Amino acid sequence: MRKGVLRPGHVQIRVMDMQQALKHYVELVGLIQTHQDSQGRVYLKGWSETDRFSVVLVEAAEPGMDFTGFKVVDEQTLVNLTRDLVAFGCQVEQIPAGELDFCGRRVRFLCPTGHWIELYAQKEYTGRWGVREVNPEAWPRGLRGMRAMSFDHCQLHGSDLQLNRELFCDVLGFHLTEQIVNDEGQSVADWLSLSIKAHDIAFVGDGNVGAFHHAAFLLDTWEALLRAGDLLSMTDTSLDVGPTRHGITHGQSMYFFDPSGNRNEVFAGGDFHYPDQKPVTWLEKDLGKAIFYHSRVLNERFLTVMT
Amino acid sequence: MRKGVLRPGHVQIRVMDMQQALKHYVELVGLIQTHQDSQGRVYLKGWSETDRFSVVLVEAAEPGMDFTGFKVVDEQTLVNLTRDLVAFGCQVEQIPAGELDFCGRRVRFLCPTGHWIELYAQKEYTGRWGVREVNPEAWPRGLRGMRAMSFDHCQLHGSDLQLNRELFCDVLGFHLTEQIVNDEGQSVADWLSLSIKAHDIAFVGDGNVGAFHHAAFLLDTWEALLRAGDLLSMTDTSLDVGPTRHGITHGQSMYFFDPSGNRNEVFAGGDFHYPDQKPVTWLEKDLGKAIFYHSRVLNERFLTVMT
Amino acid sequence: MRKGVLRPGHVQIRVMDMQQALKHYVELVGLIQTHQDSQGRVYLKGWSETDRFSVVLVEAAEPGMDFTGFKVVDEQTLVNLTRDLVAFGCQVEQIPAGELDFCGRRVRFLCPTGHWIELYAQKEYTGRWGVREVNPEAWPRGLRGMRAMSFDHCQLHGSDLQLNRELFCDVLGFHLTEQIVNDEGQSVADWLSLSIKAHDIAFVGDGNVGAFHHAAFLLDTWEALLRAGDLLSMTDTSLDVGPTRHGITHGQSMYFFDPSGNRNEVFAGGDFHYPDQKPVTWLEKDLGKAIFYHSRVLNERFLTVMT
Amino acid sequence: MRKGVLRPGHVQIRVMDMQQALKHYVELVGLIQTHQDSQGRVYLKGWSETDRFSVVLVEAAEPGMDFTGFKVVDEQTLVNLTRDLVAFGCQVEQIPAGELDFCGRRVRFLCPTGHWIELYAQKEYTGRWGVREVNPEAWPRGLRGMRAMSFDHCQLHGSDLQLNRELFCDVLGFHLTEQIVNDEGQSVADWLSLSIKAHDIAFVGDGNVGAFHHAAFLLDTWEALLRAGDLLSMTDTSLDVGPTRHGITHGQSMYFFDPSGNRNEVFAGGDFHYPDQKPVTWLEKDLGKAIFYHSRVLNERFLTVMT
Repeated sequence: MRKGVLRPGHVQIRVMDMQQALKHYVELVGLIQTHQDSQGRVYLKGWSETDRFSVVLVEAAEPGMDFTGFKVVDEQTLVNLTRDLVAFGCQVEQIPAGELDFCGRRVRFLCPTGHWIELYAQKEYTGRWGVREVNPEAWPRGLRGMRAMSFDHCQLHGSDLQLNRELFCDVLGFHLTEQIVNDEGQSVADWLSLSIKAHDIAFVGDGNVGAFHHAAFLLDTWEALLRAGDLLSMTDTSLDVGPTRHGITHGQSMYFFDPSGNRNEVFAGGDFHYPDQKPVTWLEKDLGKAIFYHSRVLNERFLTVMT
Repeated sequence: MRKGVLRPGHVQIRVMDMQQALKHYVELVGLIQTHQDSQGRVYLKGWSETDRFSVVLVEAAEPGMDFTGFKVVDEQTLVNLTRDLVAFGCQVEQIPAGELDFCGRRVRFLCPTGHWIELYAQKEYTGRWGVREVNPEAWPRGLRGMRAMSFDHCQLHGSDLQLNRELFCDVLGFHLTEQIVNDEGQSVADWLSLSIKAHDIAFVGDGNVGAFHHAAFLLDTWEALLRAGDLLSMTDTSLDVGPTRHGITHGQSMYFFDPSGNRNEVFAGGDFHYPDQKPVTWLEKDLGKAIFYHSRVLNERFLTVMT
Repeated sequence: MRKGVLRPGHVQIRVMDMQQALKHYVELVGLIQTHQDSQGRVYLKGWSETDRFSVVLVEAAEPGMDFTGFKVVDEQTLVNLTRDLVAFGCQVEQIPAGELDFCGRRVRFLCPTGHWIELYAQKEYTGRWGVREVNPEAWPRGLRGMRAMSFDHCQLHGSDLQLNRELFCDVLGFHLTEQIVNDEGQSVADWLSLSIKAHDIAFVGDGNVGAFHHAAFLLDTWEALLRAGDLLSMTDTSLDVGPTRHGITHGQSMYFFDPSGNRNEVFAGGDFHYPDQKPVTWLEKDLGKAIFYHSRVLNERFLTVMT
Repeated sequence: MRKGVLRPGHVQIRVMDMQQALKHYVELVGLIQTHQDSQGRVYLKGWSETDRFSVVLVEAAEPGMDFTGFKVVDEQTLVNLTRDLVAFGCQVEQIPAGELDFCGRRVRFLCPTGHWIELYAQKEYTGRWGVREVNPEAWPRGLRGMRAMSFDHCQLHGSDLQLNRELFCDVLGFHLTEQIVNDEGQSVADWLSLSIKAHDIAFVGDGNVGAFHHAAFLLDTWEALLRAGDLLSMTDTSLDVGPTRHGITHGQSMYFFDPSGNRNEVFAGGDFHYPDQKPVTWLEKDLGKAIFYHSRVLNERFLTVMT
């Protein structure tokens, strides 16, 4: 949090059928619906998140991610970072307060990989869902499906990873936790964090522009991942890979698809990484092990299917 | 245990290089070496097993299973069952006491699927490995690798499943816990138990003769399977599938290969099944889900690679 | 199952307020209500059990256990065992079919510890709750609270343990899995099984007559016990001890009280024990470790509060 | 990390017999011995920590904590914070580089609760123990005992909690994650974090001066806590409480004592808490539930035994 950027705060995902999407994200993934706005967008959050929403679903003709946003500590930070983004050469747009209900003004910039990233300082504070503010229970009763705790991060595919890293690290204060380097010693994938979490965003440099690989939601244990896998089968939901462990971050993970074809990850664990610690390096020639630690083999779908 | 057959007692596995095999079964799987006989065969057991050995490794030119054996309650049962096997029409051989060190006489028969199955009443009782007989600790210190608790079962592929089931159920007292039936209502795979375990042996009817699909070892939890998967990666051992859940038995499982190409399974959980309970039926058209509950897809290797 | 006795089949528990009891056993423990009879008794089962019920709650002025029953394989076994019980010197009563709805005739006997134990051969077969008979899912959706899988066993306190063991082992075909012996080498507590489960019933010899220590319900993992403990706190339910591990059986356990003061246990794991294996012996002088493996200290309440 | 303070970096613990202490901290807790200095002090670390040491054991006549230290991002931060500590009114001491081997200069101050707290910017970087820097495995083989991952935090008891909180939050940049407040609305215990961890240090205001309640080490799962509890029994180590869940932080925990009587905690999980989120408040009248979520009862020993 060297520059005042706190954490991943929201992601807006395009879905082709809202009813199907809600069945997926609310009943299966277990996010909580907290609002629907006048445009028909539905606002969701994981139960452990304290702001009003973290996932926005919007009906559209094509799947994909419209933008993902990060919360900053205060308005002054927003002003400063806007200045720095412009100085860095980013295309920057101002989104007025209220364009997303309950959310203050957002500053949106196009990052070198071709994705729209937002910063905002203000969102309605509602506290954790289903537990009291005083003497809170360990978890709320009445959770559904996979009981996702929070929106965790996005993985985005694009180009110009080097410039992108400079932007996220030097301007926004992320630190690099892990990277995959090719034979020339250049990174082909960066995992970046704002705190000690294994990653708050990941970028893969594969020549795409603005491609959306997945949005990830936090589960609490490896056993929760087993039950999440069970639920995929019970609901005839398309599994991509897992449950398994990643080499990168050493977190436990499962990938699957929402009804529109957007990839989701549910994730548990993951190494802590402090900013004074060296990034962990993986060799591209060992990509299989880096991604899927047990099988050490990538499936073609994982590398090519994006929205 | 209607006929006095107690449990899976041993399996003799052919390996092409004993040193490599021991590295695999002792250091990785975590079985305990308890003996080497004058023929060079190595005797192993899982720490929780009370008899002297349950796995016998024998060096040979080809991998595969020589035989698997079941312990019966006493000598009289052995006499009676020998008579019943002959009456059923089985080819029966007598193996004298001491052919396997520490083991009494064995009665060996060829079952309809083309496998050699043994019965024996006597094996040296050594108690659990690494824990005292009085006030025993929960587990022994000094276990290695996956910490396999016991030899659990074999899966064998052959033909004539209907006759085979009659033999195991009517003569030997197994009960059918689960089955896969084809469109004609015939079973193409049988899971059979002597107690309340999900299975003590499994047979798949795929036209093979005497084929060995895998030997399974018991782990205690889903978390132990995660760490077992980690160990595969650390030791560059070939993973087949998992960790995942089976539809059949609902147990948690991972498959991998020993250095000779024999498939191993490590297994945890699995539904209890009493003999008065109906067998669980799976439809062959849903074979993927029956075997790999999360992905609902079989890999070709799983269906065709046998030793 | 040497004598045809299959498993624990039911327990009838006295509760002082049925509505409170249902809130406890259905909403908190997670048993399924499957019937209420004309006397007002409520019939429950764990979701994984295949017969119509396993727990019967009856309103009464005092808490406690009326009886616990074991299922036998068939009517002939019932006839034979009745003869053997009488020959052993037991007081035997015949309960006609239908006294419990959906249950065939029961043979009830007073065992030496002063408890009423029943045998029956017939109960309505309903299959597992919430899953289909063909291609069954791993677990049903819609379970509540602790999601108890099944009624597992009772622990009963009384006198004359030696005679009681003879009855259960020699007449009914149980085998002794574990025991606590005093300095004179006499058992002061017996754990007895009909299959390979760590125990199907437990008796403690403490000079009581017909005292009820607890009824236990099966959970599937140590993590399920954590969440069960959480639920006690969320519902202000009185905890006795745990979650912890037992020395005896090495199972994982938590004790708590129903609103009438009956003690419940939720239990996971536990060593398998085959009838050819020696019983595990614990020394009375190490009773604390035998019962509560981590703390190695018994609380007074655990030894003295019974219903 | 608002003020450049990164994380808990070390604790120096007094032990009365070094050989017994090493048996405890190395063989049982599973810390790695990385050095012994010319004074005889032994340096340890958890395997996942990247600096040379985090725990220093020093032989002394009495148990207790000499000091605990926090790493800051750089020398300039150390200079600035020294100035701010003096301005706040703290007694500040300068410890030259090398007083602890491999560690740069330390700035030590007496905080209002009567404990010596240190800041330092430099310590030898060794990387994680037992795993390579490139393509690192998920965990190292050869870990012992409880396999502690890292030194996590200390809990310290003293007086003047309000002033202490100002120092830690305003001067050092901690944020308050949880607190226990009495009927007058005053905090009687503060949990403070530098990142998103549930706590990096905890202070209890009970009228003591400079008392040491416990040092905590991180384990990765609830199952690891079960096995840690098993190890206490196997090694006849004195358990205080657990395994159980805390209300505060909702983490999973077990307390026990080293041979000198210092209390240790092993800890897993715990809610993430960001600096923009409100602190969680617990009421002193519900202290039992706040501390031990399952039993909701404190043991006297937990409140009074300190070193």
